Amino acid sequence: MNTLGIIFRVSIFGESHGSAVGVVIDGCPAGLPYWHEELMADLSRRKGGILPGTTPRKENDEPAIISGINNNFTTGAPLVISTPNTNIRSGDYEQFSSIPRPGHADFTAGYKYKGFSDMRGGGHFSGRLTWGMVVAGYFARKILSPAIITANLIEAGGDKDIAAAIARATETNDTVGGVVECVVKNVPRGLGEPAFLSVEAALSKIAFGIPAVNGVEFGAGFASSKSYGSIHNDPFVDARGRTSTNNAGGVNGGITNGNDLVMRVSVKPAASTGVRQKTFDKEKGEMTDLEITGRHDACIARRIPVILESAVAIGLADLLMIDRGINGLRER
Amino acid sequence: MNTLGIIFRVSIFGESHGSAVGVVIDGCPAGLPYWHEELMADLSRRKGGILPGTTPRKENDEPAIISGINNNFTTGAPLVISTPNTNIRSGDYEQFSSIPRPGHADFTAGYKYKGFSDMRGGGHFSGRLTWGMVVAGYFARKILSPAIITANLIEAGGDKDIAAAIARATETNDTVGGVVECVVKNVPRGLGEPAFLSVEAALSKIAFGIPAVNGVEFGAGFASSKSYGSIHNDPFVDARGRTSTNNAGGVNGGITNGNDLVMRVSVKPAASTGVRQKTFDKEKGEMTDLEITGRHDACIARRIPVILESAVAIGLADLLMIDRGINGLRER
Amino acid sequence: MNTLGIIFRVSIFGESHGSAVGVVIDGCPAGLPYWHEELMADLSRRKGGILPGTTPRKENDEPAIISGINNNFTTGAPLVISTPNTNIRSGDYEQFSSIPRPGHADFTAGYKYKGFSDMRGGGHFSGRLTWGMVVAGYFARKILSPAIITANLIEAGGDKDIAAAIARATETNDTVGGVVECVVKNVPRGLGEPAFLSVEAALSKIAFGIPAVNGVEFGAGFASSKSYGSIHNDPFVDARGRTSTNNAGGVNGGITNGNDLVMRVSVKPAASTGVRQKTFDKEKGEMTDLEITGRHDACIARRIPVILESAVAIGLADLLMIDRGINGLRER
Amino acid sequence: MNTLGIIFRVSIFGESHGSAVGVVIDGCPAGLPYWHEELMADLSRRKGGILPGTTPRKENDEPAIISGINNNFTTGAPLVISTPNTNIRSGDYEQFSSIPRPGHADFTAGYKYKGFSDMRGGGHFSGRLTWGMVVAGYFARKILSPAIITANLIEAGGDKDIAAAIARATETNDTVGGVVECVVKNVPRGLGEPAFLSVEAALSKIAFGIPAVNGVEFGAGFASSKSYGSIHNDPFVDARGRTSTNNAGGVNGGITNGNDLVMRVSVKPAASTGVRQKTFDKEKGEMTDLEITGRHDACIARRIPVILESAVAIGLADLLMIDRGINGLRER
Repeated sequence: MNTLGIIFRVSIFGESHGSAVGVVIDGCPAGLPYWHEELMADLSRRKGGILPGTTPRKENDEPAIISGINNNFTTGAPLVISTPNTNIRSGDYEQFSSIPRPGHADFTAGYKYKGFSDMRGGGHFSGRLTWGMVVAGYFARKILSPAIITANLIEAGGDKDIAAAIARATETNDTVGGVVECVVKNVPRGLGEPAFLSVEAALSKIAFGIPAVNGVEFGAGFASSKSYGSIHNDPFVDARGRTSTNNAGGVNGGITNGNDLVMRVSVKPAASTGVRQKTFDKEKGEMTDLEITGRHDACIARRIPVILESAVAIGLADLLMIDRGINGLRER
Repeated sequence: MNTLGIIFRVSIFGESHGSAVGVVIDGCPAGLPYWHEELMADLSRRKGGILPGTTPRKENDEPAIISGINNNFTTGAPLVISTPNTNIRSGDYEQFSSIPRPGHADFTAGYKYKGFSDMRGGGHFSGRLTWGMVVAGYFARKILSPAIITANLIEAGGDKDIAAAIARATETNDTVGGVVECVVKNVPRGLGEPAFLSVEAALSKIAFGIPAVNGVEFGAGFASSKSYGSIHNDPFVDARGRTSTNNAGGVNGGITNGNDLVMRVSVKPAASTGVRQKTFDKEKGEMTDLEITGRHDACIARRIPVILESAVAIGLADLLMIDRGINGLRER
Repeated sequence: MNTLGIIFRVSIFGESHGSAVGVVIDGCPAGLPYWHEELMADLSRRKGGILPGTTPRKENDEPAIISGINNNFTTGAPLVISTPNTNIRSGDYEQFSSIPRPGHADFTAGYKYKGFSDMRGGGHFSGRLTWGMVVAGYFARKILSPAIITANLIEAGGDKDIAAAIARATETNDTVGGVVECVVKNVPRGLGEPAFLSVEAALSKIAFGIPAVNGVEFGAGFASSKSYGSIHNDPFVDARGRTSTNNAGGVNGGITNGNDLVMRVSVKPAASTGVRQKTFDKEKGEMTDLEITGRHDACIARRIPVILESAVAIGLADLLMIDRGINGLRER
Repeated sequence: MNTLGIIFRVSIFGESHGSAVGVVIDGCPAGLPYWHEELMADLSRRKGGILPGTTPRKENDEPAIISGINNNFTTGAPLVISTPNTNIRSGDYEQFSSIPRPGHADFTAGYKYKGFSDMRGGGHFSGRLTWGMVVAGYFARKILSPAIITANLIEAGGDKDIAAAIARATETNDTVGGVVECVVKNVPRGLGEPAFLSVEAALSKIAFGIPAVNGVEFGAGFASSKSYGSIHNDPFVDARGRTSTNNAGGVNGGITNGNDLVMRVSVKPAASTGVRQKTFDKEKGEMTDLEITGRHDACIARRIPVILESAVAIGLADLLMIDRGINGLRER
């Protein structure tokens, strides 16, 4: 169930300390250009070790094309692209099978997979899996062109001064959460299918596939729950559907109305705080102190923007192709 | 794309002023008992006209069994259950094809379906479609038993005194938003598949299929974005995986850990406020005043709890069946 | 799993002696015209009681529109159309729970659904379910226009003189099998996706959903297994891809090449022969004689052509929409 | 659309002359043992260059584990296994873009993918892609144990003396078709869902994903179309559902009855015959003679048995997991 999409189908694979992580894209149109440098520019935005507040684990992230590209164009066959895991220190993770880290999948995956999951580095639950989402997003953006998708970290630790919040967390060896906002300009009108494939349903499903995301909202979102219809509403001001408040976030009835699509996600503080914490030692049968010493992100939200852009691109590309499949081409 | 689920597949159908609305459930186990009164009790919780702040449109909501039940037990064939639309006043809606109501699907559906959609009463985008979700939730709960799923409106217009907020909205002929929280007790451990079928991905997809929901969060949700790892974390306190803060909302790595599952949704104020508002008249090519006079909900969030419970039940039932399919039965 | 299709999704529902049978079509384009008489003409071709060799059970088969059509055009909402079961004689079927009829689903459904399935009249396994396939086919043909889909019973009991074969079966109160061939003219080129959504994979999946079909072949089919490449091959004779033998049946590499698509299905003799046969009486724990006295088809294959046409139309419509979704509109 | 399965999801990828071919298996249970030698034994059965009548192209077919196995057990994460393409002679294929080979996908893929497909060696349409099916079949068999799945080439060129038929084809530099039969013993009872996920629908969909397969039949299949109900029927002879003729091929109403599952496929003669043939030269705009000189299989059907076994295993494993998901574990 690592797959999403109806036509533009994206599957991510890999484990943090396995041989590689990667992505399969099925249903990708033939003839899309692929530029290595352009993709690397996207990938560098999710890399650790560069931005302050991110993990010192550095992977070169170099993509290996396994299938689906020939002479720098997609061929129509499934795109398979992967990158090796090289910078691995598995020793850091040995203790967690009996002493599950709070907030991690150690406990639940151990239960679900009956002890067979490879949880080193977070295993299949690692943020490293988002590498494949960024690769898929690269191609999705080409399908959506000229739509422009931009995400930013707009708040960390409740503070708009994000650098300050991260500095505070780093100083205390702690981690801090944040809010990432994604805005899509030039979004095609009419995207989104009824009910369970509405824009919100489709995009939230992907966004919640990003580790550490625990909230998603569109337009005014949770703020609208405190508001009144006469204030919240988003009146149309021209025949093309432009609106005056965009409280709707570019979506009416689950379908894009052509105004900027606005989506925000809550990113919780990374579970691997350096601050000593409590957990239960299953072997000893008692509470114990846990001090996590591996390499981690003080503000994992710093790395989310390009991942969220990719998630949104993947979802919208699929919706575009579905709409085109049902309704044919049209002037948007 | 009115269908969701991998094994327990739920499809909703109907249009507000068509002949009926209903639901198809495929992959439902044979042998589940069906009690008409029990289902009616669930359905009555989403009915308008009873709770203060809900629409005076009254439908009897009586279910007609079309397929899949014999002698009060499910047969294993697709369950199809519908209810006729009887209390219809289509005249109320005629003007909206050229004068799209802010916040409604009039504009986007008109564009997407090229003028062929039947938008009377909101058409296929009406909240009336949630009738089918409640019916599906009825059977999903039986599959999940002994899990107990309870949702409540915990805030309206930003106020914990909900009756007061609704009274304010009603007085001014306005509408007001709210927050609905759903808690699942006795949730089976180990539910949720990686990435795009995590508990959060699966449930948010369904929740965003409820009209007026524009935000979803799990556990501490957006509040955690303001927090630090040392505070937010959710330490395990016993070998069964009980935790001390439940900030994680019962989910680690997308998989239930056996603690209470906690999910909240933001419900925007119903778009059909009685307060005079602006919109664009496509025929006249100019802005115009719009006064909506039909029967509507002052606080649509009042009707959401049983729908959200149903959404959660549907999603968890599917996850349970998937986990059982892959991993077999087990002591939970 | 009564659903098929990626975009053009068709779900059939109902039980032979339940209140109705019907179909849900999701992903159907808005604006398709619906003419009651035209659909009735299709439906009449699958009706029993008219053609020699078909069951005397007569249903009026009148469609009731539940959702998705307004003013005789599809609205874009899920199409739901059903027809009541009226001509029911359930008494005929009571004995089969303990004495399973050879070739029927009495035994397997009884086991699978733990005794809860409603097997009267074949229940959900009845050929009556194909009513919904014909309705879906009606709309699929409109999407595929100007393609022309025609199926015929080309052989019964191994005999090209079909009337004679049926007469022989009728005389002896027996049933007889047959072969139905479907040909599609003006088929769009380029339909079919790789591997498991090739034209053959997609169409066979649907065709095997027709009760009594136990074989499917394309082009030369099983005859080609006896042949040599130099004889079997299907050379191109012009730049549009016209070929000289059409042994390929209009498909190369799973993709339509624009030549006539040719598909044949084997239809076994209806299991409900009037000839006395043996089966095992589970209650008595011994073999017993069984004489089936209900109303049945001497040559069920007589009713298959319009159903097979519909199956092919449904499959091709979906493939057309998928191709259009991925590759856009194009001159075919 | 290179994916199949509802729970046990198999996706094949690669192009014949790209860097590798492989397979992704999602929804595979954790804890299945993996033995390299055991898998190689399966893979060797589909290899060219060993059996008479198969292509001299020799690949070492050595699997590289990319994800999902740790310490020789599956981890529950997606299994990704690939093998490099090493023995490539791309020069052999250059001419076919303008001179499409009869029976190959040169023409249709060229059209569908607008000239961007990489058709060297048949590209994504190559039989080489079946490598991944055999790998997936390896794991599927473990899930199905103790079911035993065996397929054999039972006829070539219409001759039961298969060696003779292959010798005739080899002598004349021609290719020959054949029939492969697959029998499953100890098949779990109750597998198969209604309509479009019946055993026949599920398995045929996969079988038609094998290049060169152009017909599929179950039990008596096409022979039953020539027969009468009184002869064809398959009476039950005990309470466990054993039958006397197995003309039904182990399936009633699309559900396994516990008798041997019997399926046969027609394999057409490989399109790449060495005999000179005609085709249309698109550049010159005229018919031309074509002589194919690359390395090919005189009797491709020789390599199909292990692939068909794998296809059947994949399909049945998915049906088993679906049934278990819906109905729970049970004594079979």
